[in-house]
Amino acid sequence: MGPRELWDRYRRHLCVCESIGLSLDVSRMNFSDGFLERMAGPMSRAFDAMEELEKGSIANPDEKRMVGHYWLRAPERAPDPAITHTIRETLAAIHRFGDEVHGGGVRPQKAERFRNLLVIGIGGSALGPQFVADALGGPADPMRSFFFDNSDPDGMDRVLARIGTDLGQTLTIVTSKSGGTKETRNGMLEAAHAYAQRGLDFARHAVAVTGEDSELDRHARDGKWVRRLPMWDWVGGRTSELAAVGLLPARLQGFDIDAVLAGARDTDAVTRAREIARNPAALLALMWYHAGGGRGAKDMVILPYKDRLTLFSKYLQQLVMESLGKEKDLDGRTVNQGIAVYGNKGSTDQHAYVQQLREGVNNFFVTFIEVLKDRDGRPLPVETDVTSGDFLIGFLLGTRRALFEKDRESMTITVPDVSPRTIGTLIALYERAVGYYASLVNINAYHQPGVEAGKKAAGAVIELQGKLLARMRAEKGRSHTAEELAAAIGAADEVENVFKVLEHLAVNSPEIRRSGADTYFDARFEAGDTLNFPEKGTGLKGEK
Amino acid sequence: MGPRELWDRYRRHLCVCESIGLSLDVSRMNFSDGFLERMAGPMSRAFDAMEELEKGSIANPDEKRMVGHYWLRAPERAPDPAITHTIRETLAAIHRFGDEVHGGGVRPQKAERFRNLLVIGIGGSALGPQFVADALGGPADPMRSFFFDNSDPDGMDRVLARIGTDLGQTLTIVTSKSGGTKETRNGMLEAAHAYAQRGLDFARHAVAVTGEDSELDRHARDGKWVRRLPMWDWVGGRTSELAAVGLLPARLQGFDIDAVLAGARDTDAVTRAREIARNPAALLALMWYHAGGGRGAKDMVILPYKDRLTLFSKYLQQLVMESLGKEKDLDGRTVNQGIAVYGNKGSTDQHAYVQQLREGVNNFFVTFIEVLKDRDGRPLPVETDVTSGDFLIGFLLGTRRALFEKDRESMTITVPDVSPRTIGTLIALYERAVGYYASLVNINAYHQPGVEAGKKAAGAVIELQGKLLARMRAEKGRSHTAEELAAAIGAADEVENVFKVLEHLAVNSPEIRRSGADTYFDARFEAGDTLNFPEKGTGLKGEK
Repeated sequence: MGPRELWDRYRRHLCVCESIGLSLDVSRMNFSDGFLERMAGPMSRAFDAMEELEKGSIANPDEKRMVGHYWLRAPERAPDPAITHTIRETLAAIHRFGDEVHGGGVRPQKAERFRNLLVIGIGGSALGPQFVADALGGPADPMRSFFFDNSDPDGMDRVLARIGTDLGQTLTIVTSKSGGTKETRNGMLEAAHAYAQRGLDFARHAVAVTGEDSELDRHARDGKWVRRLPMWDWVGGRTSELAAVGLLPARLQGFDIDAVLAGARDTDAVTRAREIARNPAALLALMWYHAGGGRGAKDMVILPYKDRLTLFSKYLQQLVMESLGKEKDLDGRTVNQGIAVYGNKGSTDQHAYVQQLREGVNNFFVTFIEVLKDRDGRPLPVETDVTSGDFLIGFLLGTRRALFEKDRESMTITVPDVSPRTIGTLIALYERAVGYYASLVNINAYHQPGVEAGKKAAGAVIELQGKLLARMRAEKGRSHTAEELAAAIGAADEVENVFKVLEHLAVNSPEIRRSGADTYFDARFEAGDTLNFPEKGTGLKGEK
Repeated sequence: MGPRELWDRYRRHLCVCESIGLSLDVSRMNFSDGFLERMAGPMSRAFDAMEELEKGSIANPDEKRMVGHYWLRAPERAPDPAITHTIRETLAAIHRFGDEVHGGGVRPQKAERFRNLLVIGIGGSALGPQFVADALGGPADPMRSFFFDNSDPDGMDRVLARIGTDLGQTLTIVTSKSGGTKETRNGMLEAAHAYAQRGLDFARHAVAVTGEDSELDRHARDGKWVRRLPMWDWVGGRTSELAAVGLLPARLQGFDIDAVLAGARDTDAVTRAREIARNPAALLALMWYHAGGGRGAKDMVILPYKDRLTLFSKYLQQLVMESLGKEKDLDGRTVNQGIAVYGNKGSTDQHAYVQQLREGVNNFFVTFIEVLKDRDGRPLPVETDVTSGDFLIGFLLGTRRALFEKDRESMTITVPDVSPRTIGTLIALYERAVGYYASLVNINAYHQPGVEAGKKAAGAVIELQGKLLARMRAEKGRSHTAEELAAAIGAADEVENVFKVLEHLAVNSPEIRRSGADTYFDARFEAGDTLNFPEKGTGLKGEK
């Protein structure tokens, strides 16, 4: 296709949405002329399904739940006045609480003002808040944000070291929809311990965002925490950024959450429309379908040319992969669906892997995100009449062309800026595109049946550890191999995990010692006295 | 395969490397019994090629260059005494400079000490330093690190705002092997402007790491910068972390770079050995070959269960994808090789996309990285006898099992800690695995012919912009459509890029105005007076 034909194709297929300041260019996807027509039927069924979902149907049949994240930005659309009411009440409570914290009405135990925010959560309770904090944050914000998003003790130590003596000015938000997420529970306990070490009462610095009457909710209520805000079973974790999960930290950091909600609401209006050519969410879903043949055969590479959007691909990894990565379709057939998502930012990633994208295995399609506004304030020329921002756009256009020359497909989303409104727009755009795509491939986008197995297996490992400790303590001072211990606790089949758990304990527990043997797997383990046991390390030179 | 057979397979295939504290478990890769034997021949040729490379053959034939990153940690192995000498001299110079900066012998223009580091670089000049800074850094380091790794004006503004009034205590390192990377040049100019605005002489705060007599080298020499350190044409950007590119910022942040080098050197010794079962780099390469059929059919998902290793996958994206993503093999045949890499950290990513990994499209293999040491200091129980670190390992083992149950392949690398030594080990392990894999699939891992096209196309866009500005200025006050302007500058075929450039200028240049038209593509653009033009924005509500 020559440049003039491409210009025609560009103009024909550019989806310009003036009301939300967004456009989507699909001209560099190699779909044929008949594709959109051919998909009109399936897409019409996807619109129908979405309409039912928005009306409050049980769109998540496995869990028998409604799917209500679209109501969060248009509470009047909720199917039940009680839902409308609780959304509005919660938003008002967030605003009120934000004002109280910023104004000093809600204050820490031993300081005048809360200056920091420690958000403890994982998955849907962290990825959205992290994305938004990085996209909209700056050093002038009223509160600095920190995150515990894992069960890594050293990772938490490092965050606490960064907060340092400011812990007394730090408000901790513990977020868990189920209220029973182990990583989050562990983070909460580690944080509580750190407050206590400074002579501070954790409860007077803690807020819970969780389902009503969950384990966490009861803990917070009984402990008289500063505040509790609700999560609802009709909002999934990965679509909870516009619920209290995301809005509370955003409001506390001083972001205009009403603008975020307005961006999402306006985008919902645009992406609800049934005219495919003017609906960027429908077009996105159809392009994913085209690229991967409806089987996820191509990875989705997300390349925003803007530092502030670097975490968007991480956010989308969850939204897209957890929603679409499913074994069964809605009819119970094994389909092993999904689309892998990766990417960081341009032009940086050009220097990392555009070599492979252009020349290597053609197993992907790129989504460029172009941000029109370069910076606040006046531009600085780096050559005559050329700015850093001109180069940034030049690299985007250059890479788009270089990929196209080699038959690599790409789309380009253009947004005016990285503002609260735009963040709302991007979130809403992808939420709906995921919903449409799920309909096209006939899967439930709103459950996650595959995550339980790993958690359950992890629980079994923790249980195994308890039995091993009990056994070794019962024979204090006597050493055993992993094989012997596994047999002794009646878990001969679990010898591999027994061995792994013992190796880990030997490095970290003040109580467990390992002594070598002739062969690696015959190492011996024993329980000893914990008192006055030296702090452990690996003894390696250069250890930090 | 039952648990006892798995335990046997685990023991049979676990590659334990006591000298470097690393083990590699490949028991959950489904290679057949005959696979390793069958690959002995190709692997033997890979060892031969590596031997030649280490002796100084022209291992990068397209660019007619030696490939010498292994000499950086064993200079005595370099094929030329001049190379041995320059490696040693450069390392000594880095140590000397580190001491001078920390001791105040080298000091800023208007302050006592340098306290911050601003590293300006992209790709191979940023990913290594960022990975290492995040892996080894903490609040007690003698210098805090910041990065410009893009041509994003707002991104740089934000970093500068974070540095704030400490800019006068900030040492800037500008790193570019070629000395002509535009993003880095732009970052340097933006930084210089920021210093100047504070009345500071940039040169007195600037260090260059670049090829001898490059554009940057001459600029730094003529400008009398604080110091210049060399890059060599026999070290590729993506393998330059253990050259001045990585060692200088690491040393300034107070990391034990001799331990990093020792870890890499010891790992080289282990991974040079020709016995496959005891060589983790050979095993890694063979597992990649097995998983993707030697055609990159499966993505490499990197899951370190440790916050400090979160950036390792970003680092590997470049090392693996830029090295292996090649159109042609060494015989000139079109092969479109490569392996896509993504991942962040566990257990966090379990909550993002293990749903898809376990149930969805089976187009990947996982590499778990297990870190034995949980934290400095004493453990905190989160349940009776259970710590956050026990949970972390439990999640790793649980996910490994949950994936295996569903026929998803994984490997596990175990390291003792995240220390300077271990960082050297991980870098060296993957550098050599990439080299071996490249031999197995018969490609040049050390060039990147595919990255020029995008840069060239970007340059053409910048040139187009210059012509457009000249044309509009010549007819100041008269407006034109993109079509008209493209024709007027003799670039009718470039009308699409003309349109994109004009849209970007209209938002950002104080000089260019856009006025709407009946149809989107007939918008009119004109040059006006730049004086007293208001600061631009998109006028959107909620704009930041």
